[in-house]
Amino acid sequence: MSEQDLGITESKSHATGDWYAEVVQKAELADYAPMGGFIVTRPRGYAIWEGIQDHLDAEFKATGVQNTYFPMFIPESFLEREKDIVEGFDPEVAWTTHGGHEELDERLAVRPTSESIIAPFMADWIRSHRDLPMRLNQWCSVVRWEATETKPFFRTKEFLWQEGHTAHRDEQSAREETMTRLDQYERLYEDVLAMPALTGRKPDHDKFPGAEMTTTVETLMPDGKSVQAATSHYLGTSFAEAFDITYADEDEDDCVAHTTSWGLSWRAIGALVMLHSDEQGLVLPPTLAPEQVVIVPIWDADSKEHVLEYADEIAADLDSAGLRVGLDDRDNRNPGFKYNEWELKGVPLRIEVGPNEVEEESATLVHRPDGEQISVERAGISDTVDDHLDEVYAKLYAAAEQTLDGAIREADSREEILGTIGQHGGYVEAGWCGDEACEAPIKDAVAAEIVMVPFEDDPIHEECAICGEPAARTAYFARTY
Amino acid sequence: MSEQDLGITESKSHATGDWYAEVVQKAELADYAPMGGFIVTRPRGYAIWEGIQDHLDAEFKATGVQNTYFPMFIPESFLEREKDIVEGFDPEVAWTTHGGHEELDERLAVRPTSESIIAPFMADWIRSHRDLPMRLNQWCSVVRWEATETKPFFRTKEFLWQEGHTAHRDEQSAREETMTRLDQYERLYEDVLAMPALTGRKPDHDKFPGAEMTTTVETLMPDGKSVQAATSHYLGTSFAEAFDITYADEDEDDCVAHTTSWGLSWRAIGALVMLHSDEQGLVLPPTLAPEQVVIVPIWDADSKEHVLEYADEIAADLDSAGLRVGLDDRDNRNPGFKYNEWELKGVPLRIEVGPNEVEEESATLVHRPDGEQISVERAGISDTVDDHLDEVYAKLYAAAEQTLDGAIREADSREEILGTIGQHGGYVEAGWCGDEACEAPIKDAVAAEIVMVPFEDDPIHEECAICGEPAARTAYFARTY
Ligand SMILES: [Zn+2]
Ligand SMILES: [Zn+2]
Repeated sequence: MSEQDLGITESKSHATGDWYAEVVQKAELADYAPMGGFIVTRPRGYAIWEGIQDHLDAEFKATGVQNTYFPMFIPESFLEREKDIVEGFDPEVAWTTHGGHEELDERLAVRPTSESIIAPFMADWIRSHRDLPMRLNQWCSVVRWEATETKPFFRTKEFLWQEGHTAHRDEQSAREETMTRLDQYERLYEDVLAMPALTGRKPDHDKFPGAEMTTTVETLMPDGKSVQAATSHYLGTSFAEAFDITYADEDEDDCVAHTTSWGLSWRAIGALVMLHSDEQGLVLPPTLAPEQVVIVPIWDADSKEHVLEYADEIAADLDSAGLRVGLDDRDNRNPGFKYNEWELKGVPLRIEVGPNEVEEESATLVHRPDGEQISVERAGISDTVDDHLDEVYAKLYAAAEQTLDGAIREADSREEILGTIGQHGGYVEAGWCGDEACEAPIKDAVAAEIVMVPFEDDPIHEECAICGEPAARTAYFARTY
Repeated sequence: MSEQDLGITESKSHATGDWYAEVVQKAELADYAPMGGFIVTRPRGYAIWEGIQDHLDAEFKATGVQNTYFPMFIPESFLEREKDIVEGFDPEVAWTTHGGHEELDERLAVRPTSESIIAPFMADWIRSHRDLPMRLNQWCSVVRWEATETKPFFRTKEFLWQEGHTAHRDEQSAREETMTRLDQYERLYEDVLAMPALTGRKPDHDKFPGAEMTTTVETLMPDGKSVQAATSHYLGTSFAEAFDITYADEDEDDCVAHTTSWGLSWRAIGALVMLHSDEQGLVLPPTLAPEQVVIVPIWDADSKEHVLEYADEIAADLDSAGLRVGLDDRDNRNPGFKYNEWELKGVPLRIEVGPNEVEEESATLVHRPDGEQISVERAGISDTVDDHLDEVYAKLYAAAEQTLDGAIREADSREEILGTIGQHGGYVEAGWCGDEACEAPIKDAVAAEIVMVPFEDDPIHEECAICGEPAARTAYFARTY
């Protein structure tokens, strides 16, 4: 990459979309595939996904989830067994029609989601109450043929995700499961992605096809839009009835199971990049950065040998302490170029060492998010670096939290909702009667919708801000990705 | 599962195929999907795949490989850019032709392998010799529409695998890469799957489409057939030329890269199950078993409390030592049923504890492969169990090695090759002139082919066993899966 290609040229605040696309490409997270709507996930992008997988997969397994792999194809007749699913996904399904030179007898959907292939197997595997709860998950890709502009990790026809599918004896157990997964998603955002999040339910008219309740993690982007960052659905008995998932209880009576499904996609990467990054490029929390620290030695002809040896030793110390460390000892690049490159690539902490640092047995640390420089002692460098990585994480989280806290505003009337969204973006909290019709004028005027309804049942407003009828709920309006 | 469903009813030696299918289903590794040629990988099967992934992925990363994700679809025009690839896979490609209600402008292949989508991106990413070697890998599924009978993990239209793709400055570096990956595959088999293996080259007429050299790991199945257990290809410059993968060397001269690709699929699971398992069911090495140890407490009304407490403590000890341990304290099953069930499911080591063991502060260990029983002291149980797991591994490996060693036979003539394969199966080592025509009569008569040519250049036979011309190589003939 040449010097002039290295910098980000777009403005985060004025051209968020272009800036985002530039960061994703220049930080080497992803490239556009030749077919519209598809991307290629490069090593630096895939490493973030692996970090997310590692964390979430361990949480799932610690709470009884088992991984599986179901076929990528679903026969059309299977999709049609649950009418809500087929209606919900029909226009978005990619169809495979030929195997080799032969036309298939029945065309096969490339999975848009796997309820309709997993449910019949659950029905087969579940015999008695002792087989419950059954908790299955798979990490895979799904395809939804939406004809919109490609936005890496946010809008792609194929995307990576995990999909969890569980069956339970009763409603309570299934509802608890739904909340367990939602909590795990929220913790992923808060503890790993440095992203504070809101959680609640989707309004009934925006539930997953066939669900009784869809819960959501919503995160705020810097341009004031909300991202649906993960969802967890309580499916009631609709899938169990459609696919005959029943079990014998203690008295050998036949009962219908209650099911859930829940998923998180690589959209998490998109939200992470969009939220923290800046006009120098990618910013990553140390939890997910492929390199947490990069050491840039600064030498002249006289000092080269000593500086490199010193830098090597620090790298070895950090590596032994289990940190992901890079040493940039390239001869053909100057330190300034290296700083820019590692800032662009989002390395959370830079260590500069030159003749002064060697002399003083010190090191200069630079925090990626805000450029803060700190001179620290060479002794105990691993612990010191660990502390500074925590500090970098805390800085990212605090900045995001401040933005989120300032972006939740109340409104009492249609005009106030429209004005607030129009002027500030973010979330507008308002009383809502529960009728989809009252969302429509907001959607039409400012393209905002009800992204979330808090779990607390008591609305904090007495009247629906739109129609003036008694408020059944509190609604959070926002523009979305 | 009822008592009568639990046992394996087919004979391993007399009906190997049926026995294998029964073990896979009853041990709950996989089920058949409704579409012919597809399977559903259940938790106990997927856990084996995860174990293989964990080992291999760590080896890959330690040797410079980076994971990526490329689209599951490849435009038809891309497949056609490398004529050998398209000729090799054309009849086996599944085609996606519709997105939603629209017919696509260009039909998309569901990836049968990804050379033709990865190569153009490598061409784009590689600029100078400093970008080399570039080593990319992905864990994904591929589809090959072969119309043969389904055999879980051996023959399925969709299968899980990893595919590595690398680019190098010169032939030597690319050939070394090819061998590095072959070695890692061989070590996976020997160190993790308890399977001794043969390595060598495929004869030229059986190379991967477009490859200069295909190397293979071959493992022997108990019915005397050979399984191609992993392959690693040196692709020369054919893909680099077709897709323009070039780099500027130190003098800024434009050079063509040399590439490799290498892959291992879930066929490894199939070979593992087929080799070690028996008429009691699945046998797994402790390295990959979802539970390495299961504790079965044996109690009567008087002793129940003490026995269960004792068993609990042992389980806690083993768990703390990092062992994967299960405690089967089900009330509704007797010990004999539990023994059968855990044998069926392939748990390498059983621990029985009853009133005697509590009294004597001991435990009874039972090795899955041969039923050997050993009474051991309760004190130091974790270390003892660790040792016994190693012993179980060694038993599996030794038995497989003995079978393999006894199954390699020499032959000097066509009749001897045919007679030996016909009578014994296994491998027949013979001189070979190098001409495909000399393989044909063996293929026609006993369905055996040349599965492997040893790396050593000096043939150990002077003449081709078939045509009598001077032998250019040594060929290993075998029937295959
Ligand atoms: Zn209203
Ligand atoms: Zn010959």
